[in-house]
Amino acid sequence: MSANPAPRAAILAIGTEMLGPFRQDTNSLWLTRQLEAKGITVVRKAVVPDEPAEIARELSCASQAAGWIFTTGGLGPTADDLTVSSVAAWLGVPVHRDEQWVAAMRERWEGKRGIRMPAVNEKQGDVPEGARVLENPRGTAPGFWLEKDGVRIVILPGVPSEMREIFERCVAPHLDNGAGESVTRRRVLRIAGMGESAIEELVAPIYRKWSDDPVTILASPGEVELHLSTRGQAAAAESRLAAIEEDFRAVLGNRIHGIDGETMAASVGRLLLEKKWTLALAESCTGGLVSALLTDVPGSSRYFAGTVVSYSDASKRELLGVSAETLRDHGAVSDETAREMARGALARFGADVAASITGIAGPDGGTPEKPVGTVCFAVVGRDGREESKGRFFGGDREMVRRTSAMFSLEMVRRLLIGTP
Amino acid sequence: MSANPAPRAAILAIGTEMLGPFRQDTNSLWLTRQLEAKGITVVRKAVVPDEPAEIARELSCASQAAGWIFTTGGLGPTADDLTVSSVAAWLGVPVHRDEQWVAAMRERWEGKRGIRMPAVNEKQGDVPEGARVLENPRGTAPGFWLEKDGVRIVILPGVPSEMREIFERCVAPHLDNGAGESVTRRRVLRIAGMGESAIEELVAPIYRKWSDDPVTILASPGEVELHLSTRGQAAAAESRLAAIEEDFRAVLGNRIHGIDGETMAASVGRLLLEKKWTLALAESCTGGLVSALLTDVPGSSRYFAGTVVSYSDASKRELLGVSAETLRDHGAVSDETAREMARGALARFGADVAASITGIAGPDGGTPEKPVGTVCFAVVGRDGREESKGRFFGGDREMVRRTSAMFSLEMVRRLLIGTP
Repeated sequence: MSANPAPRAAILAIGTEMLGPFRQDTNSLWLTRQLEAKGITVVRKAVVPDEPAEIARELSCASQAAGWIFTTGGLGPTADDLTVSSVAAWLGVPVHRDEQWVAAMRERWEGKRGIRMPAVNEKQGDVPEGARVLENPRGTAPGFWLEKDGVRIVILPGVPSEMREIFERCVAPHLDNGAGESVTRRRVLRIAGMGESAIEELVAPIYRKWSDDPVTILASPGEVELHLSTRGQAAAAESRLAAIEEDFRAVLGNRIHGIDGETMAASVGRLLLEKKWTLALAESCTGGLVSALLTDVPGSSRYFAGTVVSYSDASKRELLGVSAETLRDHGAVSDETAREMARGALARFGADVAASITGIAGPDGGTPEKPVGTVCFAVVGRDGREESKGRFFGGDREMVRRTSAMFSLEMVRRLLIGTP
Repeated sequence: MSANPAPRAAILAIGTEMLGPFRQDTNSLWLTRQLEAKGITVVRKAVVPDEPAEIARELSCASQAAGWIFTTGGLGPTADDLTVSSVAAWLGVPVHRDEQWVAAMRERWEGKRGIRMPAVNEKQGDVPEGARVLENPRGTAPGFWLEKDGVRIVILPGVPSEMREIFERCVAPHLDNGAGESVTRRRVLRIAGMGESAIEELVAPIYRKWSDDPVTILASPGEVELHLSTRGQAAAAESRLAAIEEDFRAVLGNRIHGIDGETMAASVGRLLLEKKWTLALAESCTGGLVSALLTDVPGSSRYFAGTVVSYSDASKRELLGVSAETLRDHGAVSDETAREMARGALARFGADVAASITGIAGPDGGTPEKPVGTVCFAVVGRDGREESKGRFFGGDREMVRRTSAMFSLEMVRRLLIGTP
C-alpha cells in the first residue's frame, strides 16, 4: 500500500504484578490506538518485572526493533518502583534529584493531609540527565522523554488516567509527522443479532475487492465487529476508507447499528432520544443484564423508564400481569409469555416501547422440548406494534445471557427504525 | 525464602492481530497459573507479529532471560502463520513434512466435509528436526517441544481450548520436578465495602511479620483483593501459606467475604442458600447491575426472587410503593426513600431479604447538597431488621455504579451473617 514504511514502536509495561496469573497490561491497547492514529505501528509489546536487569534486557531488544519505546509503570514512590533508575542506568546517564519538585510534593502532603511525606517518596523527584520532564497534573510521578542514538524513549506512569493525560498533553502533539507521511485509518462497523458466518457470506465479494486493505471480523456474544483499516497519506487514506465503508454499507445496510466505539446500548439510546421515546424492560433469564447495559450509558435516565426482573412465575403474574393461563398452557419460556411480559412492562412503567426476555440460561432448567439456550423475546410499542421471536443459542450461561441481551436490544432497535 | 531459585519462563504470544488496539493475549494468564503451580516463575511476556525477524528477536531475548520459552499462536494453515518455520530457522534446524499426518488431515477433510483439502494446509504437517510432537486432539495443528543449549521451547496453538488441552496432556506431566523442589502457593482474600487504605492500615503489622512472602493489594471498584503467596517445597509452602492466611484472618475476620475466585455475588448466593432465603432488589442508579451480577452465578434462580429497576419517581411510587410524601420531603436519594424501596421490593416479591440502591451516578443530576457520587442504601429482612446507609463515592459513572453494587451486596452479606 504505502511507499514509506511506518515508524515503529515498542510498548513496555513494567511491573511484577502483571506477570502473575491475575493482572493484565491494558494500557498498551489505548496507547496502540493513539500511536496508530499518528501513523506509528506497534511491532512488539512486552511485560517485565520491576527488576533493573529485565528492564535493561527489554530496552536493548526493543531498541533494535523500533525507533520509539513507550514504557508504562514503575514510577511510584515505593522501593520496588525502579523504572527511572533502570532506564537511566541502561542509557548510561546519571539521575539528579529535582529539589524544587520534592519541596512541592512535601508541601502537598503537609498541606492536604497534614502529615510528613515519607522519605522514600523523595525519589519521585529524580530526573535522568537529558530528560524532558512530562508534567503529571493528576499525580506526583511525572513522565520523561529521552533520546539516544535515534531511539526515543517515553516513560509514562502505569495509572491509566495519569498515563492518558500525560500522553495527550505532552506526547501526542510531538508525534504529528506532517500530511506527507503514512497514517492508519480505521473504522469499525457493528452488527448484532446475526451470526459471523452469515455476515461473512454477505461481505465476501467486498473482501476480495479490497484485498490490499485488511478487514478483520471479530465476533463476541451476540455481536460482530468488522474492522476496516487502510494506510496512506492522511487525506488519501480517509477517502479510501470511506469508499471501503460505502461498499460494506451497500451490502449490510441497516444491519449496521453503530460504528467505532458506540455500543449497542448507546445506539438504542440514541434512537430513543431522537424519537423522544422511553423504554421499559421485563427480564427473566438475562436477570438485569440488558438494564445494566442500557444504564451504563451516561444520560440514559432521559429515555430509560425501568425494568422488572422476574425470575419466578409468581412475579411474572404479580408484577407484570402475565396470566396464570398463559403460564400454565404455554410455560414461562414461550412467545405468549414474552408478549404478556412486554405488555406488562409497557403498562406498568407507562413507557413508549417495552421489550422482554424469558429463557433458560442454564446450566440447570433445560428439558427435552426446551433445552438450555432456548430464549423467547418480545417487543411492543405504544402504537400497538408487537413482535415475538424464539431462538436457540449455544454456549454456556454467560454466552446465552450476553447473546440474548444483544438480540433483545436489536429487536428494540428494529422496532425504532421501523424494520421488522 | 527458598535456597534454589525458581526456574524461569518467558511467554511469547505470536500474532499481528494482538498488536492492534483491540485484541489482547489472554493465554498467558492461564499458562502463568499452570507454571506457577509447577514452581516455574514467569519473568517476561511478549507479543510479536507473524514476522520471522521479530519472532527470532524475541527468542534471542527470551532465551537469555529464562530456561523455558512457551509460544502460543501462529500454527494455523494460512500464509501468515509462520511460527514453526521461524522457530526452526532461529534454531538452525530444517523442517520435515510428516506425510502420514498430511494424509490423515486430507482424509479428515474429504471424509467429514467431502471437499479437497487446500494445498496450503499441508504445512500443518511440518515438523522441525529434533522436535517432539505434542498431539492436538481438538484441531489439526500439533504443538512441539524443542531443546537447544539448555533452553526448552514449547510451541502451542493460539486457540485457547487447544492450547490448554495440549498443555495439560503433553506438557504439564513433564514439568513435575519432584517434591524436593520449590513451588508457588497462592491465596486470595476478598473484601468489599472497605477502602484500600483502611485495609492497609489494619494489615500493616502482618505485612512486616511475613516480609519474605510477597503480599499484593489489588483494588477494583468497591472491592479489595489481598494476594498472598509463598514459595517452597510443596507441603512446607502449604502450611506456611495457611499460617499467613490465619494471621490475616485474625485481623480482618468476617470482613473477608470469600477466597480465590469466588465473586461477591457468589458469596452472597452461598449464604442465601445456607439460610434458604430469597433476595429481592430495588435498584435506581445501579440500573440492574446488582441483579446482573447476582444472576450471573449459575443456580441463582434458587435464591434470587427479582428486581424492580426504578429510574423515575413515578415507578418508585407505583412499583415499589414509596410514598409521595417521602419523595417530596426527603428526595429520591435519601435514606428514607431507600428504606421504602427495600420494603416495597420485599413485599412485592415475597422475599426474605431485600436491598435497595438510590443515588446519583452522574455525569448529570448532581446538586450542591447531593453531588454526583451520593448514594443511599437500605437492606431489610423479613424478621424486621432494617438498615440504611449513605455514602459518597468518587470517580466516574462506571466507578460509582460498580462501587455501589459491591457496597449493597456487602450490606446484604452483613445482614445474612448477623453483623451490623
